[in-house]
Amino acid sequence: MVGTDSPTVGVIGGGQLARMLGEAAAPLGITIIALDPTPDPPAAQTCRTVTGAFDDEQLIRQIATEADYLTIEIELADPSVLESIQDDHDIEIHPTPDTIRLTRDKLLEKQHLAKSGIPVPSFKEIHTEADLRTAIDEFGLPVMVKARRGGYDGRGNFLVESEQMIPEIMREAPRPLLVEEAIPFDRELSLIAARGVHTTKTFPVGENNHTDEILRETIVPARTTPEIRRTATNVANKVMNSLDGRGVFGIELFEQDGEILVNEIAPRPHNSGHYSIEGCLTSQFAQHLRAVVGYPLGDPSLRNPTVMANILSDTSTQIPAHLIGVDKLLETPGVSFHWYGKREARPLRKMGHITLTQAEKTATTDSMLTKARSLINHVSFTDPT
Amino acid sequence: MVGTDSPTVGVIGGGQLARMLGEAAAPLGITIIALDPTPDPPAAQTCRTVTGAFDDEQLIRQIATEADYLTIEIELADPSVLESIQDDHDIEIHPTPDTIRLTRDKLLEKQHLAKSGIPVPSFKEIHTEADLRTAIDEFGLPVMVKARRGGYDGRGNFLVESEQMIPEIMREAPRPLLVEEAIPFDRELSLIAARGVHTTKTFPVGENNHTDEILRETIVPARTTPEIRRTATNVANKVMNSLDGRGVFGIELFEQDGEILVNEIAPRPHNSGHYSIEGCLTSQFAQHLRAVVGYPLGDPSLRNPTVMANILSDTSTQIPAHLIGVDKLLETPGVSFHWYGKREARPLRKMGHITLTQAEKTATTDSMLTKARSLINHVSFTDPT
Repeated sequence: MVGTDSPTVGVIGGGQLARMLGEAAAPLGITIIALDPTPDPPAAQTCRTVTGAFDDEQLIRQIATEADYLTIEIELADPSVLESIQDDHDIEIHPTPDTIRLTRDKLLEKQHLAKSGIPVPSFKEIHTEADLRTAIDEFGLPVMVKARRGGYDGRGNFLVESEQMIPEIMREAPRPLLVEEAIPFDRELSLIAARGVHTTKTFPVGENNHTDEILRETIVPARTTPEIRRTATNVANKVMNSLDGRGVFGIELFEQDGEILVNEIAPRPHNSGHYSIEGCLTSQFAQHLRAVVGYPLGDPSLRNPTVMANILSDTSTQIPAHLIGVDKLLETPGVSFHWYGKREARPLRKMGHITLTQAEKTATTDSMLTKARSLINHVSFTDPT
Repeated sequence: MVGTDSPTVGVIGGGQLARMLGEAAAPLGITIIALDPTPDPPAAQTCRTVTGAFDDEQLIRQIATEADYLTIEIELADPSVLESIQDDHDIEIHPTPDTIRLTRDKLLEKQHLAKSGIPVPSFKEIHTEADLRTAIDEFGLPVMVKARRGGYDGRGNFLVESEQMIPEIMREAPRPLLVEEAIPFDRELSLIAARGVHTTKTFPVGENNHTDEILRETIVPARTTPEIRRTATNVANKVMNSLDGRGVFGIELFEQDGEILVNEIAPRPHNSGHYSIEGCLTSQFAQHLRAVVGYPLGDPSLRNPTVMANILSDTSTQIPAHLIGVDKLLETPGVSFHWYGKREARPLRKMGHITLTQAEKTATTDSMLTKARSLINHVSFTDPT
């Protein structure tokens, strides 16, 4: 199992998630082949990469002849293509194409969760302005109009705060659509859960800060009550019991008035789990690989309180990436720097992240968060001169 | 500095040290090109590799045209070749060829240390049986005859316990030679020290167990007195002050009757520093890369008590590598598994290692060492059936 017969994993997608899967693969003796449409994607430094579309059936079949398992790092993988490859090749796909089909469509996902008795915000399929007005009558304002497919980092989400906004949003929003009540949450929480061959394991509950719907910071453990953390973990376990296939899942939650609602599920490693590389005994990337190839899951326990902050491009246009001020990140005790190897900086593009572990015993998540923000403010992709 | 202009580092050697340098390189945005005579060496999974001899001047010159810095992971690099390349190309080499020349020759190294006022075991250059007998008269038995160059993992070292052994050892030992008093040490200690552009930083003091002169286990912190740990750190700093060039150095020490003697210096990451991947805020591999490319050094503080144990091949012949019992390692909380990707198991070959971090607050280095030994005994490259 480890040795000359170590497994090879094909990954649909070659972004930073595949890059970090590659970083976790070598110590486990696992080889990765990643498929991405961009030549020299982030994964190219840590994986063998193949250049082609995420749904290029011929290329995926070629990868399937070399790999022992297939997995994804992006929901743009086509579940039907994967299904037909699974039928023809002797290869396991994790998570299952069914689970990918469910979780790549926000309406199907919500319907599935509701049917499984898992608490979610009220939602409705909509096609027309009239449908949206009917939903607003039912949910009250504000509501969130969402593209069912292809949205990420807030793309495809439209907050409707007044009736006046309806026409423009319904003109712009890419079909098909659903609408949800906008939850006035107290906190956004998330956790990574992993299913292996025989067991499911959940990582600690993290607290997420988003701005413009893009994740900025994850604080672990979440600064909420132990009861809420327990409820969040229970809800995550229910979600896992309702979905097929091995691998890690990023489960985004709202905390509101002591209740937990599920917001979204990513059937793959998740930005809010990056803290686990330094923060946990097993990282989400190692855990995903262990789960996919059928190795025993690792212990995801938290080693120390940990804060993760994304390094987003602060440029107004696309320019060659050059991070100014990085020395400050590198020289601060307890800061781990993660660069994604992207050559171009584009407005708000995720370029890397930093993780702060509890370098001093007296450090708290609050003090680490303050430090993380100051460090992130210190770096820039634009030369101030 | 980080971005499209991220540095490339050429590494002489493509073994497990280069493989782990590669694992540490991606998060820092650093690219590695490793030179090794074996096709598909351990580094191939994490670095670009070039196949050729360690002293193939033409290939190293070719790497030098692509790389911004050159470093080594094996002392078989030829300092004269590196010197001539440094003169002709606009490339920095760390550690310096001078330091490589000193530390690859056990006699030159000992002479240098003694001259620098650093405590070392008594030693003497020898050529003949008569020279050895003279040294034995002076040092008393036992003594250690050592090949000046090319020895590692005990190869090239010959313990002389009786006068009867002299003729055979002097026939077998590869020239040129030195002899040292054999220190009846209380403990073998070591530490990793790093020199950057402006600063030197030392890692915690580890305690090493060798069998047949091959490292088996490293325990951190070393189970000795705080005074001894301080003395060891002071000696390491003296060593660093006496040597040129940036990078990490593995400094092996003997503790005897409350005194510290320097045994050997490796001008590169060292097996006894592998624990730092999980054990310290910055690993020796990340630290080496930071030092070589001139980034600020990271904080090498210990996160938790940590034990590292090598996975050596227990085969009696060379066979394809297949590690049996690895599930047990993977499922034990707090155990990190590191596989080196070697295809062939050979007697006592280093195939991987495990690191135990303090998964439970009550765990001690003693209890972790017991657990590490039991885990190492559990795995095998030979099928018991």
